[in-house]
Amino acid sequence: MVNLSLCATPRGGAISIPQPHKLSAYNSAIPTSILFPRRKNAAFLPYPLEYHTKKLTFSVKNQYSTPQEQNNQQQRFSPFPSQPGQLPPRVYVGYSVYKGKAALTVEPRPPEFAPLDSGAFKLSKEGFVLLQFAPASGVRQYDWSRKQVFSLSVAEIGNIISLGARDSCEFFHDPFKGKSDEGRVRKVLKVEPLPDGSGHFFNLSVQNKITNVDESIYIPITKAEFAVLVSSFNFVLPYLLGWHTFANSIKPEDANRLNSANPRSGAEFEWTR
Amino acid sequence: MVNLSLCATPRGGAISIPQPHKLSAYNSAIPTSILFPRRKNAAFLPYPLEYHTKKLTFSVKNQYSTPQEQNNQQQRFSPFPSQPGQLPPRVYVGYSVYKGKAALTVEPRPPEFAPLDSGAFKLSKEGFVLLQFAPASGVRQYDWSRKQVFSLSVAEIGNIISLGARDSCEFFHDPFKGKSDEGRVRKVLKVEPLPDGSGHFFNLSVQNKITNVDESIYIPITKAEFAVLVSSFNFVLPYLLGWHTFANSIKPEDANRLNSANPRSGAEFEWTR
Amino acid sequence: MVNLSLCATPRGGAISIPQPHKLSAYNSAIPTSILFPRRKNAAFLPYPLEYHTKKLTFSVKNQYSTPQEQNNQQQRFSPFPSQPGQLPPRVYVGYSVYKGKAALTVEPRPPEFAPLDSGAFKLSKEGFVLLQFAPASGVRQYDWSRKQVFSLSVAEIGNIISLGARDSCEFFHDPFKGKSDEGRVRKVLKVEPLPDGSGHFFNLSVQNKITNVDESIYIPITKAEFAVLVSSFNFVLPYLLGWHTFANSIKPEDANRLNSANPRSGAEFEWTR
Amino acid sequence: MVNLSLCATPRGGAISIPQPHKLSAYNSAIPTSILFPRRKNAAFLPYPLEYHTKKLTFSVKNQYSTPQEQNNQQQRFSPFPSQPGQLPPRVYVGYSVYKGKAALTVEPRPPEFAPLDSGAFKLSKEGFVLLQFAPASGVRQYDWSRKQVFSLSVAEIGNIISLGARDSCEFFHDPFKGKSDEGRVRKVLKVEPLPDGSGHFFNLSVQNKITNVDESIYIPITKAEFAVLVSSFNFVLPYLLGWHTFANSIKPEDANRLNSANPRSGAEFEWTR
Repeated sequence: MVNLSLCATPRGGAISIPQPHKLSAYNSAIPTSILFPRRKNAAFLPYPLEYHTKKLTFSVKNQYSTPQEQNNQQQRFSPFPSQPGQLPPRVYVGYSVYKGKAALTVEPRPPEFAPLDSGAFKLSKEGFVLLQFAPASGVRQYDWSRKQVFSLSVAEIGNIISLGARDSCEFFHDPFKGKSDEGRVRKVLKVEPLPDGSGHFFNLSVQNKITNVDESIYIPITKAEFAVLVSSFNFVLPYLLGWHTFANSIKPEDANRLNSANPRSGAEFEWTR
Repeated sequence: MVNLSLCATPRGGAISIPQPHKLSAYNSAIPTSILFPRRKNAAFLPYPLEYHTKKLTFSVKNQYSTPQEQNNQQQRFSPFPSQPGQLPPRVYVGYSVYKGKAALTVEPRPPEFAPLDSGAFKLSKEGFVLLQFAPASGVRQYDWSRKQVFSLSVAEIGNIISLGARDSCEFFHDPFKGKSDEGRVRKVLKVEPLPDGSGHFFNLSVQNKITNVDESIYIPITKAEFAVLVSSFNFVLPYLLGWHTFANSIKPEDANRLNSANPRSGAEFEWTR
Repeated sequence: MVNLSLCATPRGGAISIPQPHKLSAYNSAIPTSILFPRRKNAAFLPYPLEYHTKKLTFSVKNQYSTPQEQNNQQQRFSPFPSQPGQLPPRVYVGYSVYKGKAALTVEPRPPEFAPLDSGAFKLSKEGFVLLQFAPASGVRQYDWSRKQVFSLSVAEIGNIISLGARDSCEFFHDPFKGKSDEGRVRKVLKVEPLPDGSGHFFNLSVQNKITNVDESIYIPITKAEFAVLVSSFNFVLPYLLGWHTFANSIKPEDANRLNSANPRSGAEFEWTR
Repeated sequence: MVNLSLCATPRGGAISIPQPHKLSAYNSAIPTSILFPRRKNAAFLPYPLEYHTKKLTFSVKNQYSTPQEQNNQQQRFSPFPSQPGQLPPRVYVGYSVYKGKAALTVEPRPPEFAPLDSGAFKLSKEGFVLLQFAPASGVRQYDWSRKQVFSLSVAEIGNIISLGARDSCEFFHDPFKGKSDEGRVRKVLKVEPLPDGSGHFFNLSVQNKITNVDESIYIPITKAEFAVLVSSFNFVLPYLLGWHTFANSIKPEDANRLNSANPRSGAEFEWTR
């Protein structure tokens, strides 16, 4: 996969930035299309209304589910199994916007860490934010089986949170970049100001030459909803970079032990050669 | 209940957004009017002064109480009973502004979660911010028995935090939308810039045809107080969406266990069909 | 004590806001002047340099100390005694700016809570930010015995964080407002843009008719230092209001217990009468 | 070491601020050049690709490593040894930008605390953000052995986060200020707007008369990447000042114990003389 972004401000100026540090496969071993084949009459109410709680029994075969539930059913592939013990339970959170022609669900996805020989850890992959677009299939009903997804990288999130009211933004993803199917799937996410300045259009276009799909989903995002996105993105960004682990590791109580274990030298840290 | 919002900027442009994903009953099974009947002479000092601590005895019958205390007396319906054990104690927090003709108290209310069969949880209802307006009944005295309340949804909070110094904003709520009493109670919250640019007016109008109440409470909010609101709203917004549970679940120490339990596949997550 | 604020923007407009909800005595039972009498030759290096660690012995009589250490010596009155057990150790933190003619130290002070009969707690007093101004007594030396202090309330902090590059701000405090000595001590904090737009002047004037002191301490704060203040104030503000206790109390795991203990009613929360 | 900063805005105005409270030696007792001698053919892929996990064996002698791994190999000098017990494991986090001619890695470094006789702690040194610049040695390959580092102090971070789209900024560091080698190493970090307004140039120049090195590394940072930096810096700044320890110490449950242990006096805290 490769990410390209093209951003234009009303003052002119367009840049193209290749971003070699990109996101790849997350946690899905089975193509979603197998679990959730597209059907003509697939229809959904907005997600909080038809959420199934423990009191309800439901059968996967007969029933469509919201994106969160789809993830839940794929939980054998989830990085957060809810085993008893130290791990906090997995919680599905997101932020959803429902409009006349489409719905958009925004969900943060965690970074990944790898253990080092020393017992320490390093961040091995930055987290991201998963955008899921579903076209409407009726009044307040959305067909999640036809959803299209787009993973916003940290830099793309930085782009969104710095977008002025009149700015626009464009990201290109090729999920198969560098693989044999390179160029056969092309995704473009455009964020453009609404003509009356009341918000932005989010437009995800997917051209898939493998499945002969060519779909474009539009959803208007008001200034208010955009402010919720920006506030949430600002909150979540340090976590996607793992910087909260830095923050959590600062404990004054450790000063004693650390100082005796690590006598300071007079060497200047910035002095390198 | 239905929420509608109308927002105008000085550059023109007005939008009407139906928001199907709305807030409903929170935690009050008994109408407040039964517990706190309106009385003519009801009067209050600003909340920190007359707060009752454990050392004081007080009788509900003889005495009015501040909004926090009313909640406290309703605690049998509260989602945070202070049982000994795992649950942290319930803490009543808010932010209050006291002016000549009215007082405004702002309190965050938590989201709700529902357990899934898998042992995981999902956010089942977004949190909100409860605004409580009380008219003045004397010098620095407010009649909380005549209070009017308004629940700001996440999107409405997004509206407030993105409001420019010259912008205005209007939200419509019908608590009985979709029920038999639809249209009989109509609430309008207007946020408008003060003429001299020194802040905003908050104006809550409530027309209640059931109780024949038609009240409008105005309170001026200075730029400084508005900045406190915006800062607090920005802080609390990710919690109202439950995104802090995502943040808390990211632990590098789990990398070992997770990686062995969840072998990565080469499948591209964004590839859906 | 009473707080009054007068704020002017370059676009004109000045407002006077009485703020009845004010801060009072914090944690000092002994006037600072007894512990730290003013001396002519009192002199200090900036605070991190002469900080005394455990390895050093020091005598209060022979030696001046930084503001943090003064607080430390007053610790018998501190709300955070470092007893072994549940309480985290007390940590003295602040942010200091050292200039040619004065130093400014900024320290957050916690809110206070009071227990309720129900076992819950309520915020009984908002936290604040303590500003301490010390005049220079030599090159990079400051006389903390002559310090003047000013407590920024939450609303005044809101004022600071919303201050534009060309805005100015003025706060009035009378520590004895409503007491017999009302009017005998008058403090004015002015925050005004530097003529070249490179930052703000902070000017604390104290007129004390009891001790016949009439002092005015100026310190220029650059845009960069102001940005650090605003970022820190934005971070700390929700804690001063106690809203972090709300945030910490939201746990999905409690959903089961809470739902069974608190059956929801169909009553609309916003319906009040 | 001394830090000087020169900042210019398009509206004119340049200021020079001596900052006596400066950062010094961090945690490196051995000059990096000994462990990582400069070699001509040293080359690296961007950091997440060639990260070595536990499954891989690697030899320090034969192989270059990313900045995080260099730190890891120096871990005997790290303040966060990953001992079993109370200390959370050390996690290496950062934010990296890879461009055609150079790479930039940004890493937060913790503040330091010193124990007081009372059992409390004080912040003894503010944290900082370490910038590491590496020149490109090929297509998407960077020579970390030739890296140049620059430590951003809290005030310099404040400068960066308050930088407008058209503002520029300049910081001067002399790692040997006040020592015998004063003036022999001179570092200048310039942050300047890109001509087309699409971001900023970061330019680190190092003149080292001891090693006869005179190097200048340029890297363009887009608006989006700059927004990620600003968001991360805003997140991390309170932790660099240790203010999170203040935040963590506020617990309502302590109200009972504290109130009985610390009876409030009527003395006005602001009253000093």
